[in-house]
Amino acid sequence: MPTEPTNIVFKRRVEDYVKSLQNSICTALEQLDGKAKFSQDVWAHKESGGGKTRILQQGNVFEKAGVNFSAITSTLSPTLAVRLGVQPQNIFATGISLVLHPVSPMVPIVHMNLRYLELANGEAWFGGGMDLTPCYLFEEDARHFHQSLKEACDKHDPTFYPVFKQWCDEYFFIKHRGETRGVGGVFFDYLKEDRDKTWAFVQELGNAFVNVYVPIAQRRKSEAWGQREKQWQYLRRGRYVEFNLVYDRGTLFGLETEGRVESILMSLPPEVHWRYNHQPEDGSREAALVSVLKQPRTWI
Amino acid sequence: MPTEPTNIVFKRRVEDYVKSLQNSICTALEQLDGKAKFSQDVWAHKESGGGKTRILQQGNVFEKAGVNFSAITSTLSPTLAVRLGVQPQNIFATGISLVLHPVSPMVPIVHMNLRYLELANGEAWFGGGMDLTPCYLFEEDARHFHQSLKEACDKHDPTFYPVFKQWCDEYFFIKHRGETRGVGGVFFDYLKEDRDKTWAFVQELGNAFVNVYVPIAQRRKSEAWGQREKQWQYLRRGRYVEFNLVYDRGTLFGLETEGRVESILMSLPPEVHWRYNHQPEDGSREAALVSVLKQPRTWI
Repeated sequence: MPTEPTNIVFKRRVEDYVKSLQNSICTALEQLDGKAKFSQDVWAHKESGGGKTRILQQGNVFEKAGVNFSAITSTLSPTLAVRLGVQPQNIFATGISLVLHPVSPMVPIVHMNLRYLELANGEAWFGGGMDLTPCYLFEEDARHFHQSLKEACDKHDPTFYPVFKQWCDEYFFIKHRGETRGVGGVFFDYLKEDRDKTWAFVQELGNAFVNVYVPIAQRRKSEAWGQREKQWQYLRRGRYVEFNLVYDRGTLFGLETEGRVESILMSLPPEVHWRYNHQPEDGSREAALVSVLKQPRTWI
Repeated sequence: MPTEPTNIVFKRRVEDYVKSLQNSICTALEQLDGKAKFSQDVWAHKESGGGKTRILQQGNVFEKAGVNFSAITSTLSPTLAVRLGVQPQNIFATGISLVLHPVSPMVPIVHMNLRYLELANGEAWFGGGMDLTPCYLFEEDARHFHQSLKEACDKHDPTFYPVFKQWCDEYFFIKHRGETRGVGGVFFDYLKEDRDKTWAFVQELGNAFVNVYVPIAQRRKSEAWGQREKQWQYLRRGRYVEFNLVYDRGTLFGLETEGRVESILMSLPPEVHWRYNHQPEDGSREAALVSVLKQPRTWI
């Protein structure tokens, strides 16, 4: 029996991991929601590979939650080849991507993405991260989020957390608004060195997700809110859309590699408002959030 | 008394025209709306110049209508310099930009932009256009819109309408959806030759706006609609956001030249929904619209 080349084995190991992570995360989120269930769409990429898109809508806790797995092989578009500084060639990409839009404005939006890319020429790297986008600031939540991420990072390299925390603040920056998207977390890309170490770290992060986010959602889901808070959430979701469509590398990568549009754009919130020149009142809780987004903090 | 150099006189003439066009269009739209009035924000660009942003919200006919005038001088960003194929230098830009988001899903969204740009090196050009985005297709409206635009074009050059109509279909194409944004109209850019002829044409188009759009809105504003139609409008507005934030040259130009964000993004609809994988029913009026967007038609 022929043995598979090492790199094929490795990319399938990553693929298997993110696939099983999708299962365990969806189970935990259904339990948290207590009402709605994920529905699944299996899709095939027009070139090679495909994915499983799972969406939960109109739940108790989540208005819309998307947890995507995909593993595709695609021709690199000229635009992407230039951006990556390589010749046009095939690229293999596998990963998990999730965005949760809660019903309650008190429960923060969360996003996680873990991805592995491999070019036909053998170059390969990991990218991804996890970040939190509250509509109302609970410092305790931001600290818990960052503390948990720091612990996961520190098990692998003490430089990871400070570097990836700052990278996150810089990446999720809505330049035209002069605001970060949320209170940050960790972000990294093009991690090419020391594959096994990075791979262990990526799994650590994936495995940590439920314990990082679910306690925050549990804590906030019974917090009181009314029309004023819901309206503010609709406006904040507008910023989320602005970031994802104008700046997000993952969204643009997906659209440019002609990925499945509905899976890529599952990140967009179910209902969004734009009100001309809306400014939160001085001294309000809404203004308190914005001031943190304009000046990212150290949370630990 | 010194005489002004000709090119300064010309750019001020364009500026004065678009400024007065803003007035006459706002007057006509307030009359059509019958309830809400435009409020005005005067703003200054951080380098030189500024604009007047006029917004009408929660009217009888319009949920949100924005009519912007601006005239700025700005340093060309490196990105824009590369895109225009010129050295970094100052650019003067003046124009009018309007986007009307009606309350009724039966009244189409309309967009018009007329702009004049002049580089410090003397190169100058006009760009702009006018296009219609219905949520429900009324062929009579699309024909009236295109017929009126063709008449305006034909007074200046018989090649204008066919060329600019096709340019519009190509420009307002949401690649990742495989759909045009609406039923088109006219679009043109980088018109550098024969300045006086182009300038006369641009004024023709500006002057035509009220007679092109208002009769359509008048005809459709009393058309019946219910929850189903409003929900469809919210979803279609999602496509409008996708186009404007991912592809629109004017929006990206504005954000990159650090224009006033609230004025640039006044084009975004007041309320928007994204529903995962929504498909209109076969044979429905919603499906009829989509089929026209997937295969642009000749309307005359």
